[in-house]
Amino acid sequence: MRVLITGGGGFLGQKLGRALGANGSLRGHAITELVLADVAAPSLSGMPFPVTGVACDVSDEPAIRRLMTAPFDVIFHLAAIVSGQAEADFDLGLRINLFGTLNLLQAARAAGNCPVVVYASSVAAHGGEEPEVIVDGVELNPQTSYGTQKVMGELLLNDMSRRGMVDGRGLRLPTVSIRPGKANAAASSFMSSIFRDTMQGQTANCPVADTYPIYHTAPRTVITNLIHAAGLDGALFGPNRCINLPGRTDTVAEMIAAMTLVAGAEPASRITWTPDPVIQAIVKGWRGHVLAEKGLRLGFAADRSFEDTVRWFLEDDIARPM
Amino acid sequence: MRVLITGGGGFLGQKLGRALGANGSLRGHAITELVLADVAAPSLSGMPFPVTGVACDVSDEPAIRRLMTAPFDVIFHLAAIVSGQAEADFDLGLRINLFGTLNLLQAARAAGNCPVVVYASSVAAHGGEEPEVIVDGVELNPQTSYGTQKVMGELLLNDMSRRGMVDGRGLRLPTVSIRPGKANAAASSFMSSIFRDTMQGQTANCPVADTYPIYHTAPRTVITNLIHAAGLDGALFGPNRCINLPGRTDTVAEMIAAMTLVAGAEPASRITWTPDPVIQAIVKGWRGHVLAEKGLRLGFAADRSFEDTVRWFLEDDIARPM
Repeated sequence: MRVLITGGGGFLGQKLGRALGANGSLRGHAITELVLADVAAPSLSGMPFPVTGVACDVSDEPAIRRLMTAPFDVIFHLAAIVSGQAEADFDLGLRINLFGTLNLLQAARAAGNCPVVVYASSVAAHGGEEPEVIVDGVELNPQTSYGTQKVMGELLLNDMSRRGMVDGRGLRLPTVSIRPGKANAAASSFMSSIFRDTMQGQTANCPVADTYPIYHTAPRTVITNLIHAAGLDGALFGPNRCINLPGRTDTVAEMIAAMTLVAGAEPASRITWTPDPVIQAIVKGWRGHVLAEKGLRLGFAADRSFEDTVRWFLEDDIARPM
Repeated sequence: MRVLITGGGGFLGQKLGRALGANGSLRGHAITELVLADVAAPSLSGMPFPVTGVACDVSDEPAIRRLMTAPFDVIFHLAAIVSGQAEADFDLGLRINLFGTLNLLQAARAAGNCPVVVYASSVAAHGGEEPEVIVDGVELNPQTSYGTQKVMGELLLNDMSRRGMVDGRGLRLPTVSIRPGKANAAASSFMSSIFRDTMQGQTANCPVADTYPIYHTAPRTVITNLIHAAGLDGALFGPNRCINLPGRTDTVAEMIAAMTLVAGAEPASRITWTPDPVIQAIVKGWRGHVLAEKGLRLGFAADRSFEDTVRWFLEDDIARPM
């Protein structure tokens, strides 16, 4: 069982690698090698099987072909240009999010073993003419270039799965909060920083009103769900391999209250409230309410409370950071 | 008013060019030049304004850039690899249908005048997990590579319109019947040939049962709707620039009965009934019933009867063929 993670240097890639190390196996087979690919070669120490870090840009087609000369059994495709950056630079987003995904899927197809491909899509797939509460089966009408490119990748994944070229599973990730590390160019970056940074004694700005509803999921839940997606029989997805992942909806105010319950009143007092029209314009196109019935039916996990998320953050990322 | 038609050598491109000639203007402005682009340079005689035929493969990015050095005000993007061929050759379909559309939209963006782009998508966008009767707003789950590539183009058109790069309008064409000329590699080819060829004394095979429902539209209606799409204010589409076009649903048997009413009993007797599992596999993934409410609200035309279609075919394509 050879496993590849693109975006393997990112926080999800690293957490996923560590979880695979803890499990030792995937789809009922012992993992014999894990390859982590990212713009800079990632590493991961103390793992029970060989881990190879490869520096590789997914938009570099020959490099992706070389990376995948020896077939992988399971590929987690997490590499992406995030929402704020893809909105600021249309061509960069196309190059990484669309062509990177195409390169990866074509190389996976060329390997000839119809590998399992777990594709990280996003709740940013939703917006525009869609109903306020997203249910399964609504027409995807993304209002960001990031969401658009993610949905184009979903379509490709579906078609190539239908043709037996790859065995794809696409997951629309809710906003992942609390994201460890530094702020990034995602428009949703504040949805982590107002918790992560304030719990570590820093200030952080919330650019939207505290009534803004966020459809979110904890890093632990996402990792559980990525691994669950790899383990499922692809046929269970039916003709649409791409689903909304379960998460939960809380307003910013409710999430802050949960943080206060777990970590005391001080962090919340460090939040500043300067509106940011650019961020607001992006996130107002997203949806805060998603009923992920198909995802739940397929056994994907949902978050039970943001208090859990705060506790897990303190435990996983502060007490023993990676 | 400079106008470009890609796929300008095809039957729709030719009929559209002729209709533009008859109108003389578009969006309230006199047409000063019409450029028809296709794999072989198309021509169109007896037109009231200059017509230029250009041999140009839409997947040839530099050629498309050259073609669009001088800005067009309106672009009709009809060029495509049809369903049967895109299903037989995945990479060819991607190259023409996805990359061709991307090249065209990028060149239109580079022109800097935010041109109107009317994009021919297809009812093949629908299938899979969608309901039996398609309504507006259902998640597109195409079950052919052609449909997939068309929807990927829709997403790109929407995003680039949102960003003000182009002023796009995407129309999901019902099956166009009766298509003049020769049979093509579209899986839907029989939906024209069993009428077109039998009315001209030849036999034609129907590879599906006569109970198969077809969501169809006449060439005249499509041309009316393509021109209507170009004329509308883009903002009327709202955040989703791509719509289902009105058409009508009849079973194969009902369409044959309509032909018999107009053209007598002989043509129907020339239809052979050899099932074709390949065609059946493709078309069973399509949908025969579409309620195109948004399209009707935007003033697009629907077909009133297949008898009309048969009459128009005899008048437009037999009595005075192009």
